[in-house]
Amino acid sequence: MPILHHHPLSAGSRYVRLVLAEYGEAVELVERHPLEREAEFLALNPAGTVPVLIDETDGPIAGPAVIAEYLFETRGHRLGEATLMPAVPKERAEVRRLVSWFLDKFDQEVTTYLINEKVFKRNAPRGNGGPPDAAAIRAARANIRYHIRYIGYLTARRNCLAGRAMTCADLAAAAHLSSIDYLGEVPWEEDMMAKQWYARVKSRPSFRQLLADQIRGNPPATHYADLDF
Amino acid sequence: MPILHHHPLSAGSRYVRLVLAEYGEAVELVERHPLEREAEFLALNPAGTVPVLIDETDGPIAGPAVIAEYLFETRGHRLGEATLMPAVPKERAEVRRLVSWFLDKFDQEVTTYLINEKVFKRNAPRGNGGPPDAAAIRAARANIRYHIRYIGYLTARRNCLAGRAMTCADLAAAAHLSSIDYLGEVPWEEDMMAKQWYARVKSRPSFRQLLADQIRGNPPATHYADLDF
Repeated sequence: MPILHHHPLSAGSRYVRLVLAEYGEAVELVERHPLEREAEFLALNPAGTVPVLIDETDGPIAGPAVIAEYLFETRGHRLGEATLMPAVPKERAEVRRLVSWFLDKFDQEVTTYLINEKVFKRNAPRGNGGPPDAAAIRAARANIRYHIRYIGYLTARRNCLAGRAMTCADLAAAAHLSSIDYLGEVPWEEDMMAKQWYARVKSRPSFRQLLADQIRGNPPATHYADLDF
Repeated sequence: MPILHHHPLSAGSRYVRLVLAEYGEAVELVERHPLEREAEFLALNPAGTVPVLIDETDGPIAGPAVIAEYLFETRGHRLGEATLMPAVPKERAEVRRLVSWFLDKFDQEVTTYLINEKVFKRNAPRGNGGPPDAAAIRAARANIRYHIRYIGYLTARRNCLAGRAMTCADLAAAAHLSSIDYLGEVPWEEDMMAKQWYARVKSRPSFRQLLADQIRGNPPATHYADLDF
């Protein structure tokens, strides 16, 4: 069975868990604190970040986008037509643009601020923590509104983020939103189309594992696991 | 002919120019200031960043990593065996990890600080500029040393960054280093193996166009175009 080094609230790790579940691949989870810098983990990923996948024959594969491409190349055929990546290069480019929008841009403008300040710093190992930075949290709360409206704009025109069918782009966006929704920080009232799209992704069987997550000292927001939020 | 919206010192744009040249694809360049926010350009790429490729039949393709994957899918066959992406999923994952290392991590820790502070802010349109931030420049100068040593470590063991043969990973790293080398900010004395590897990549025909770049008001460092630096 493949091993995934992850953290339950790391949005990149959640993205990989969703992709694995969509491909029907069971995985052994090893929890890592994102602010630890253990030499043994740095040997797996010199960047020191989760997620890292150890496949049965293939050595460490690091980074959410890289792991998802690898899983598509090695497991994508399992889904037949309903693959998470379209076949046409131009459409694949649009999926990858949106995957990067959420894994990189949304991560920098929203997720990292909220999760680092509200969760990771509180229980950081050996002095890597500190008090939450109120300015970072304020910036994230302002930035998320425009991202929610962008999701609403796209899904109103396309049904899913990159087109009619669900792709990796939807999983990347929903993974990030789910981490923040755990903290009760998603302003769902901002855009009804975005909320309806999230309700659809949240109802997929692959999502159940995320909704069962519980972080010690940080219980989820009351509506977090509610499919009818 | 495809059109590339770029800036001469944007490292991501340089990466795409190198990939295009390796595939023997001529391109029409349209210069964009990275801090402009023109509505017409935001329609091509809502993130507002360069590079953006308009292919002859395919609409805007945005982001350096996304464009390189698209070019590999549509032009990769031209290089036969000497492709910039290996055929094995595990090896492709290592190439993509290192591409992301330079396009994302190195970019955030080094390139953005130096290029934004020393170039883009100086000639920014309509009040998006400002004086250079000395702390950002100091951080970049400290961070680059460990990246140069990492390049030396990898190339000493593998010949190129991701293995024996040159791949997209070498082009991504060299694109970033070339932007900074234009400013004379690469401490080449830090690692001789890294310097030798860069001299090899810099000598490739695909690199000539970058060495001819000249930015108004920012002449290149004296050794910039010298293959024997």
